[in-house]
Amino acid sequence: MTQSIEAIITELKRGVEDIYSEADLVEKLKENRPLKIKLGADPTAPDIHLGHTVVFNKLRQFQQLGHEVIFLIGDFTGMVGDPSGKNSTRPPLTREDVLRNAETYKQQIFKILDPQKTRVVFNSEWLGELGAEGMIRLASNYTVARMLERDDFKKRFGNNQPIAIHEFMYPLLQGYDSVALEADVELGGTDQTFNLLIGRELQKSAGQKPQVAMTLPLLVGLDGEKKMSKSLGNYIGVTESPSEMFGKVMSISDDLMWDWYNLLSFRPTTEITQFKAEVEAGKNPRDIKILLAKEIIARFHSDADADAAEQEFINRFQKGAMPDNIEEFTLEGEIGLANLLKEVGLVASTSEAIRSVKQGGVKIDGEKVEDSKLVVKSGTTAIYQVGKRKFAKVTIK
Amino acid sequence: MTQSIEAIITELKRGVEDIYSEADLVEKLKENRPLKIKLGADPTAPDIHLGHTVVFNKLRQFQQLGHEVIFLIGDFTGMVGDPSGKNSTRPPLTREDVLRNAETYKQQIFKILDPQKTRVVFNSEWLGELGAEGMIRLASNYTVARMLERDDFKKRFGNNQPIAIHEFMYPLLQGYDSVALEADVELGGTDQTFNLLIGRELQKSAGQKPQVAMTLPLLVGLDGEKKMSKSLGNYIGVTESPSEMFGKVMSISDDLMWDWYNLLSFRPTTEITQFKAEVEAGKNPRDIKILLAKEIIARFHSDADADAAEQEFINRFQKGAMPDNIEEFTLEGEIGLANLLKEVGLVASTSEAIRSVKQGGVKIDGEKVEDSKLVVKSGTTAIYQVGKRKFAKVTIK
Repeated sequence: MTQSIEAIITELKRGVEDIYSEADLVEKLKENRPLKIKLGADPTAPDIHLGHTVVFNKLRQFQQLGHEVIFLIGDFTGMVGDPSGKNSTRPPLTREDVLRNAETYKQQIFKILDPQKTRVVFNSEWLGELGAEGMIRLASNYTVARMLERDDFKKRFGNNQPIAIHEFMYPLLQGYDSVALEADVELGGTDQTFNLLIGRELQKSAGQKPQVAMTLPLLVGLDGEKKMSKSLGNYIGVTESPSEMFGKVMSISDDLMWDWYNLLSFRPTTEITQFKAEVEAGKNPRDIKILLAKEIIARFHSDADADAAEQEFINRFQKGAMPDNIEEFTLEGEIGLANLLKEVGLVASTSEAIRSVKQGGVKIDGEKVEDSKLVVKSGTTAIYQVGKRKFAKVTIK
Repeated sequence: MTQSIEAIITELKRGVEDIYSEADLVEKLKENRPLKIKLGADPTAPDIHLGHTVVFNKLRQFQQLGHEVIFLIGDFTGMVGDPSGKNSTRPPLTREDVLRNAETYKQQIFKILDPQKTRVVFNSEWLGELGAEGMIRLASNYTVARMLERDDFKKRFGNNQPIAIHEFMYPLLQGYDSVALEADVELGGTDQTFNLLIGRELQKSAGQKPQVAMTLPLLVGLDGEKKMSKSLGNYIGVTESPSEMFGKVMSISDDLMWDWYNLLSFRPTTEITQFKAEVEAGKNPRDIKILLAKEIIARFHSDADADAAEQEFINRFQKGAMPDNIEEFTLEGEIGLANLLKEVGLVASTSEAIRSVKQGGVKIDGEKVEDSKLVVKSGTTAIYQVGKRKFAKVTIK
């Protein structure tokens, strides 16, 4: 029995940043009942990228162990919008908006999660009944000084940047959600640690066993530096086409690939260790990257799509024509294609670049470029090719 | 017209500590309509003493000028009680408690205010409907840093004493009351300044003309040092008997008397100036003190009661037997009567004191003492007499 729980814990800890506390988790697992695993989601942004899926993958693990996932849509505060009314980019959501976003969420998360073992809930259900009185009682559980220990509050307070008082209420409401749901475990990114711990405390105050707070690292994006985010452009959306996904996965560095394997692949740890050994023994990491790309495409599309994307990629780059090591460059700010090609030394001048495009000799990720005036946007990484032999991998920051 | 407003302003400013702002008050008075004058009251403590009446006297002035007084009973937070549940001495009030306390309040305040021009309201009426959502919107109007500017918060924060987050909500709710009532003027003690100003700001945010915040000083109690308060014992309750009131007023110092005249008497300023001139010209201030005592008794009892109390006081002290200047003493902590008499030199020993009591030769405020083992409590001031000629005024801190 203890043995088996140890094995489970080891698997559950894969890729996890912190657990508060492991002892509590062990105790709960020993109770031998389906645990309630909570994940809170913002109701405004249902456009999921691979970065978001790290935590869904962990939820999936819990499901496979027989536990119940509670996917909580934070519609209550979403329907408040920006309470000061100062930020017109955050208008209050209507009930229709919330329901529509929830449907979009479901379509995406059920590529990973088992719908039969997933309960989707809306916190307006209990927060709507809380009232100003309940809000006061809730707030009485926590002190100003302790709230100011939260990283971003501490920084802003120290820098004399304003913190509106309602911002102190949001972590408390999130914690109260755990009380209302009697959550056993709550997952979140490392940026959520403070809020998850408030949930633990509020549950204790309410006489419940505190939830286990489990934090997952933020996935690093295509650029290999910053966390994956839509606004930085360094992301792979889960609804992107198979060929986009394939090209983007193939563009990441070998180092980042191992990180992604750990956080995104469903392959057992033993298999990944084996891959590493093979690469150390001389195998081209590109081939391992292809396996990751195919696994991800199969997850969000199908096995057939994964095979097709691989074939298309091979055809595009004319098998064998692309060298194993392509020189890499990073440029700042959006740039005209002709200038880009000149900057990285694929052409001697912009006029040569324009001529090459017109003659059909320039490709981006294996695709022929038609427009010689093309402007390449920030936040992209692609393989640029001039003629048959000249390649460069260029990231535009 | 302007002349008359100036005269009104002068009278309204009597005894006032601060006005935010006088210009706003002038503007509102010029509108020539009944203004809404708000006073908030704690629903838990309907036992009113003279200290509380300072602000009622100011409300009465507004009423006499034709304005409407709104006496707000803060039942909403009273019904929450101590939200942390830690303080069992602050149990949540029931609706019945609140209504009963409100009746007690009315009986007391209508000795000063005109019931026809006084509206008694309960803030649960609008705060009950606010909801957690309204509470969030309300809190978004104010920053943590600005809330921490409030004196007591600043001190506690600086001393690492805990401030529970709900404590930040109470001033906001008080301010919201002003929005809900569209108050023109709010009165309060100087300790309420911060909260009254929040009302001004929230009204501005809500598109209303900001209320005028008018603060009144805290009345100094019988001891001449600390603010009048029940817990310090240095107070005169408005339901105390005429003879208790008379004795207590007569026990205050001459300096404090002028302060009380300014804040408690309804006599015009000119008359009080005249009294001062008479005392400077040699009149015994005791006679002026008698007028104040009688005015206060007449207010809370009747003219006849005032006359009777005066007569009783004179009889007790056997007209002419009490010297004009009685030596004053202050002792610390409750003390046995025999020790007290020895300490202030009215007797040579405690055994002499006990003998004197048994022989009926000891009086407190003119009343014969029967019990030689009497213990005198802290927070009292009285005139002690041994035999015909030995007097001392003793305050026990």
